[in-house]
Amino acid sequence: MGKTRIGIAGYGNLGRGVELAIRQNDDMELTAIFTRRDPSAVKPLTPGTKVYNIADAESMKDQIDVLIICGGSATDLPKQTPALAKNFNVIDSFDTHARIPEHFANVDKAAKESGHLAFISLGWDPGLFSLNRLYAESILPNGKSYTFWGKGVSQGHSDAIRRVEGVKRGIQYTVPIEAAMEAVRSGSQPELTTRQKHKRECWIVPEEGADLAKIENDIKTMKNYFDEYDTTVHFITEEEFNANHNKMPHGGFVMRSGLTGDGENTHQMIEYSLKLESNPEFTASILICYARALSRLYKEGATGCKTAFDIAPAYLSKLSGAELRAAML
Amino acid sequence: MGKTRIGIAGYGNLGRGVELAIRQNDDMELTAIFTRRDPSAVKPLTPGTKVYNIADAESMKDQIDVLIICGGSATDLPKQTPALAKNFNVIDSFDTHARIPEHFANVDKAAKESGHLAFISLGWDPGLFSLNRLYAESILPNGKSYTFWGKGVSQGHSDAIRRVEGVKRGIQYTVPIEAAMEAVRSGSQPELTTRQKHKRECWIVPEEGADLAKIENDIKTMKNYFDEYDTTVHFITEEEFNANHNKMPHGGFVMRSGLTGDGENTHQMIEYSLKLESNPEFTASILICYARALSRLYKEGATGCKTAFDIAPAYLSKLSGAELRAAML
Repeated sequence: MGKTRIGIAGYGNLGRGVELAIRQNDDMELTAIFTRRDPSAVKPLTPGTKVYNIADAESMKDQIDVLIICGGSATDLPKQTPALAKNFNVIDSFDTHARIPEHFANVDKAAKESGHLAFISLGWDPGLFSLNRLYAESILPNGKSYTFWGKGVSQGHSDAIRRVEGVKRGIQYTVPIEAAMEAVRSGSQPELTTRQKHKRECWIVPEEGADLAKIENDIKTMKNYFDEYDTTVHFITEEEFNANHNKMPHGGFVMRSGLTGDGENTHQMIEYSLKLESNPEFTASILICYARALSRLYKEGATGCKTAFDIAPAYLSKLSGAELRAAML
Repeated sequence: MGKTRIGIAGYGNLGRGVELAIRQNDDMELTAIFTRRDPSAVKPLTPGTKVYNIADAESMKDQIDVLIICGGSATDLPKQTPALAKNFNVIDSFDTHARIPEHFANVDKAAKESGHLAFISLGWDPGLFSLNRLYAESILPNGKSYTFWGKGVSQGHSDAIRRVEGVKRGIQYTVPIEAAMEAVRSGSQPELTTRQKHKRECWIVPEEGADLAKIENDIKTMKNYFDEYDTTVHFITEEEFNANHNKMPHGGFVMRSGLTGDGENTHQMIEYSLKLESNPEFTASILICYARALSRLYKEGATGCKTAFDIAPAYLSKLSGAELRAAML
């Protein structure tokens, strides 16, 4: 069987992660990278990789089995995924939870009309965390679910602090509060406020002569982003920033505390957690393993839009059903 | 849509757990219990439940959508599951890992010949732990997986110590060793011996006048069960035994430590854990939620044998695809 031919649309941190993940899967190959920039300005990690302008993607449609779209959820993916599904099987990591039903409908329509298969909202949340919520809530219907994020870099919150006057460089870490997680693990099924679940830590390189007290206050009182949290603001030098804050770690926890038995007083606890040194590289690894599943399901005749919920786990593995039963069950 | 009509074959701890799990799922109903004992000697927790001898099961075949077989893996299930698949859709929790391929083949043949659908080896290991191994190893192909069990009661080891001369009552807890788990979480991908991963704790009520030193030595040196582990033996009174060792807690951890990125030196860690106050009640909750999936897949025309690997997660939930995407993705 030939290798699955992968295209990458959008060559930022996630796109580069996909390129690296392909190297770890010998049933995959990178066919082309598509960019909105001048293709000659893009330098792939893998020498010799073809780079095209995204406007020319259609010409490559017969040479790509799965196109992985690595754009942003705010403005890129709502347009790109349905548009590219007209010519390609596509995968995206659309992560604006509230808009998933609308995005699903748009992508499903485009993919069904063109006879392609599309997977959306893959990654770890939405994605692996969603799967864990589904499995745990189906198994323990009498219970309460909790999701904690971190410790890790929130791109949205980092962008927000960088827009504050007097901030030269800035990064924000979301930190789950240990006491809240311990309360969940105890089985007490606590009601937790936003402030009780997470705190926020900001590391700032100020502009020369900036008003530090004002920066701190502007951040801590910022509506939607910080006002409902306990936030710490640290001012550091650019050297310290470059040395200690150049990674994109992330992670988090999905927990389900449930009750079973006669009288429903037997406590059962399910916990799933991720501790990631690189959020984009891990997300990319998920996308590539779902590209394998997509390729198989498409060969079986599937079209339209699917999410992680719709895909039987065996499709993700290189191993056959018999090999999986012998080695992993 | 009518409720899924469940039959329970074998009414021990697991069978009673299934009966209790049905109460938590209003799309399920208990139709009958089948036993090898005299049916009049079985007292279901739910008054009015019909109890039949297992030999008369065939007469009920049109009144049961899914038969959950709650026998033991050593001798019951290898015979019962293929035999009952001739007349029923069946689910079992066959957990002898090494014999799964053979059991799968036997059940698959019987179910295909009769046009039924069978799910085998469901529970948490095999089952949820297997799923986590599969997802994690597919996502992080460069890595190492670890499974730890406990703290919890091992039925097999408890049976073994009860066969030792001078033991009146006995129970054995498998305990994962925290230092080994921390070494895994550090990302060092350690090679761990059997002794480094788990220890064993035994609580014994001795017969009057028994030779305690001999009991302890007989246990600690028992081949296959204890000789490769550090084992602690505690002697207690029957009162203490009844007060503190009357539950069947269990649990465990599945971990995958993987590497991604250029140079493959970015550490990524996935961890799944269960902390269960009742092993049989939790296993039963899994079986019932897979009964929902079985009922749906059978209506779609599926036959033969399947495992957790083959079942798309969405089939487990009472919610529709659209509801799941809106609420849980």
